[in-house]
Amino acid sequence: MQQFDLDIERVISIIKDRNCKTIGLQFPEGLKRRAPGIAREIEEKTGADVVISGNPCFGACDIDTVLAGRIDILFHFGHAGLGKHDNVVFIEVRSNVDIVPAVRKALPLLKTRRIGLITTVQHVHKLDQVCGVLKEQGKECVVGKGDGRVAYPGQVLGCNFTAARVDCEELLYIGGGVFHPLGVAIATGKRVVAADPYLNQAVEVAPEKFQRKRGGYIAKAMDADVFGIIVSTKSGQNRMQLALGLKELAKKHGKKCFMIEMDLVTPEQLLAFHADAYVNTACPRITIDDAERFHAPVLTPQEFESALGERDIEEIEMDEIGQDN
Amino acid sequence: MQQFDLDIERVISIIKDRNCKTIGLQFPEGLKRRAPGIAREIEEKTGADVVISGNPCFGACDIDTVLAGRIDILFHFGHAGLGKHDNVVFIEVRSNVDIVPAVRKALPLLKTRRIGLITTVQHVHKLDQVCGVLKEQGKECVVGKGDGRVAYPGQVLGCNFTAARVDCEELLYIGGGVFHPLGVAIATGKRVVAADPYLNQAVEVAPEKFQRKRGGYIAKAMDADVFGIIVSTKSGQNRMQLALGLKELAKKHGKKCFMIEMDLVTPEQLLAFHADAYVNTACPRITIDDAERFHAPVLTPQEFESALGERDIEEIEMDEIGQDN
Repeated sequence: MQQFDLDIERVISIIKDRNCKTIGLQFPEGLKRRAPGIAREIEEKTGADVVISGNPCFGACDIDTVLAGRIDILFHFGHAGLGKHDNVVFIEVRSNVDIVPAVRKALPLLKTRRIGLITTVQHVHKLDQVCGVLKEQGKECVVGKGDGRVAYPGQVLGCNFTAARVDCEELLYIGGGVFHPLGVAIATGKRVVAADPYLNQAVEVAPEKFQRKRGGYIAKAMDADVFGIIVSTKSGQNRMQLALGLKELAKKHGKKCFMIEMDLVTPEQLLAFHADAYVNTACPRITIDDAERFHAPVLTPQEFESALGERDIEEIEMDEIGQDN
Repeated sequence: MQQFDLDIERVISIIKDRNCKTIGLQFPEGLKRRAPGIAREIEEKTGADVVISGNPCFGACDIDTVLAGRIDILFHFGHAGLGKHDNVVFIEVRSNVDIVPAVRKALPLLKTRRIGLITTVQHVHKLDQVCGVLKEQGKECVVGKGDGRVAYPGQVLGCNFTAARVDCEELLYIGGGVFHPLGVAIATGKRVVAADPYLNQAVEVAPEKFQRKRGGYIAKAMDADVFGIIVSTKSGQNRMQLALGLKELAKKHGKKCFMIEMDLVTPEQLLAFHADAYVNTACPRITIDDAERFHAPVLTPQEFESALGERDIEEIEMDEIGQDN
């Protein structure tokens, strides 16, 4: 069974060192269950008052800034650091799941000698081990650094695949889910093999079906008259300048459009506005993962340019948020 | 059909007078549909850039403070002013629904001569008319002022029934829904007749069934070992001092408890924490309206005191938020 190690001793030692009296804790959904016990342990060992953030948390881009403003220090669990925050400490979480069996299953699918390695933060400490397995088979490994938005070599985010842009023809992704390896395949144009240690399986990523589906949304948005442009208020997801540029573009093409600022971007909240289509400048994953739940097409910024005839559909890149937004 | 009048000319004149360049708009759910059109009208007539808040909005206690911090002026529609905000203008909304037929249906249910009148903000401009109808029948009307949290005489909120505390034995509530008149009946202990102009009907409020149900939640919470105490981050719903007092009380009784700060308090978000019971210091309506959707008992502060044996169940008052919280 997968276990996550949370370094509570480090948390307690920081609280004592800095003599903090009021403490905030923020966890991604999968770790919230452990929050009450951790809060109690901290209160017992430090005497400080602890408040847990009860809001949904989707990443290091999603700091509970309201809570952070009310307490001495906020510990944000489960994600590597991102952005500048005065009183936020990121407590990363490492998975102890064994990645070797899935990597061995990936070996027969790899066609070339030089392999780029990528993963998410909870497995970054295993990349050396992966490299060892590949070397045994005569392969060569390359691990990209990524831009300033990612904390570790080889680390990819759902909105940032810069660490995958390395000199190789094939990439091996280690981790769960289909979103990250799909994003890497589209962002880099390279062949991607995904080794999933949770399901203990390996597959080659096939982005064509996904891209056909996106083409359908773009076609539907071409008939839209009224566009809603979504801007996030989350700490690491605000792309207002991009949104303002898109608004100008819409005007140039005689489209009606309005700007919506939101914290949580949900199908229910968008429904109220009755636009014909939306453009999402918040977390790129929302556009993709929730696509079928929205009542109207929700496009990435580049897909929107394509719908307006300003960009060839073949030249649409994966929506990413870089170190400079 | 009910229409709501929104004073957009006033909005435009304020923007021009104050020479504002960036404008925020916030609407309750029922008015969000009109937001894109209003945004466009404002942009065309003033040249300013408009951003709409896409977050849920439940009252004047629920200002989008993040948006307000990013623009010159925020217009908050549909609620009467509450709290101090530097750059927020409240644009109230009046319903033009005819309240007289429902009031006439209420007349036979009123047993005494002196009647207290109460309503919600969208009908406050009709209280004189209601009074006229009652006077024709030889009744006397009394309208309470309420505390500093309410803007108009006779106005009640879901969390404040101070305007109902007047010298009379019977109250007539004009408006939709069952929550407000139920709250008034429990808060004042008086007989309440509710005249609903939307359904064109009048009924006497019977709080006994509701109170029995609450008694069931309190009984269930008596067996709880772990309590989560919910504190809101919304501008007009934060009762941290009250919550800290409840935490001390829980400790005194040997209960484990933890504090959760949240924006939206939903059953889904609470589920993650696996407490045996919760105490809600955020909007009192959440405790009542969503009671059956929560996986565990969610109590008001006074219900919690009762579950701990610190308050007689007969002495539980309706949970209210006053002018001083």
